[in-house]
Amino acid sequence: MITSVSNQQMKYVKELLNKSKQRKREKCFVAEGIRMVAETPADRLVKIYVSESFYKNPPELRGLELSKALIVDDQVFRQISDTQTPQGIMAVVRQQENCLEDILKQPDALLLFLENIQDPGNLGTMMRTAEGAGVTGIIMSRDTVDIYNPKTIRATMGSLYRMPFVYADDFCEAIGQAKAQGIRLYAAHLKGRNNYDGEDYRQPSGFLIGNEGNGLTKEAADSATDYIRIPMGGQLESLNASVAAAVLMYEANRQRRKEY
Amino acid sequence: MITSVSNQQMKYVKELLNKSKQRKREKCFVAEGIRMVAETPADRLVKIYVSESFYKNPPELRGLELSKALIVDDQVFRQISDTQTPQGIMAVVRQQENCLEDILKQPDALLLFLENIQDPGNLGTMMRTAEGAGVTGIIMSRDTVDIYNPKTIRATMGSLYRMPFVYADDFCEAIGQAKAQGIRLYAAHLKGRNNYDGEDYRQPSGFLIGNEGNGLTKEAADSATDYIRIPMGGQLESLNASVAAAVLMYEANRQRRKEY
Repeated sequence: MITSVSNQQMKYVKELLNKSKQRKREKCFVAEGIRMVAETPADRLVKIYVSESFYKNPPELRGLELSKALIVDDQVFRQISDTQTPQGIMAVVRQQENCLEDILKQPDALLLFLENIQDPGNLGTMMRTAEGAGVTGIIMSRDTVDIYNPKTIRATMGSLYRMPFVYADDFCEAIGQAKAQGIRLYAAHLKGRNNYDGEDYRQPSGFLIGNEGNGLTKEAADSATDYIRIPMGGQLESLNASVAAAVLMYEANRQRRKEY
Repeated sequence: MITSVSNQQMKYVKELLNKSKQRKREKCFVAEGIRMVAETPADRLVKIYVSESFYKNPPELRGLELSKALIVDDQVFRQISDTQTPQGIMAVVRQQENCLEDILKQPDALLLFLENIQDPGNLGTMMRTAEGAGVTGIIMSRDTVDIYNPKTIRATMGSLYRMPFVYADDFCEAIGQAKAQGIRLYAAHLKGRNNYDGEDYRQPSGFLIGNEGNGLTKEAADSATDYIRIPMGGQLESLNASVAAAVLMYEANRQRRKEY
């Protein structure tokens, strides 16, 4: 049993939880909680850690294989964990990105292009909503927050393992590639002339969503096929980024559902 | 100038920021940041506090009246503030709720009934989206998180001052009252038979949104006119509560926009 936070493995886990740089170097991340660990594909699992109490009284859950799990003292587990009330299980998992070409060539593409999203919760929530709405892939700019941030992972509710995604080295070039393949890309923009629900998303299409405070860069917005806007009543100046993305994705979902 | 965190007024502000009980007793709350303070209706302002640096170099902004502001040492201000990088201005503001009857009798009602929402950010985001979508009022169950929680206030982006809302003493009774006035209420529910976009929201209507983890109580869901569901692809079991609310509110907005 691991009984100290200075244990090498515990230090390693803590660094993976706290440091994006370390995650990038190791190409690994930490998945916390029963469901996240149970949903982790077996071939990507590096190591499972459980607290002593968890080990003594594990829940029955399909996909949860504890025979190789390492046991950690409850106190130590609590100190390492990123959550306030840890469930007593976490795993080191190998990262896995898709490649842009594979994402772009999917039939009936419905894409989300995210530029410089900074709030980990927003990013995770967008990925979760994307799965629900039938989005086929997410392309992120390099300056978007790390998808393997513990807060992001929690907010994805497992979509992280199911939604194809990639960080594009050159965001605007990726937009160009998508358009070259016939995918129509709509920039959510306060200057949009057309309401979002006036467009036809039954064809291959995608949405460009910008940074929470500043929106899309001019370069990215100008690369889009067209600007669209979400009408807003009252004196509101903008919607929360993950809310705006949700409204757009579910409008596409609504149109596609009705017709097919 | 106030130079100590033990100053009586500073203690009072800190308590208002941290304790829901204290806010309820005093019927006041703290608004932080330039925009929130500038948007505060003059008749509800109790007192404005600014940091020394802010006072020496105040931004020009309509509605910002600093002649009666009290100056607080920068260090002290930082310690009191609820934000990591305080803008240097906060105000004690009188609470103001609407009454249920006034909310229900508005023409073309579009209501949001929130039961036991626990995440302050979710609640604030829902209020912000509600203003954008043209919602006419929000009714909350007593066990919903305090709308005057600093995190909630921040997430409302000023909608707090513009969106009518009330905490209902008896949530299900409030649902009954609304229905008695001819308002159709739809419970967002995983067991809903009809997709949310199959209903007509151009008539007076409203949505019932439940707790993040547990959804609506059976009692509340059964009080609704009908269940509706948001279709979800993939293996997703639910959407984030504020995302679900946004999808519903903007579907109502879309329908009402098209027709009127």
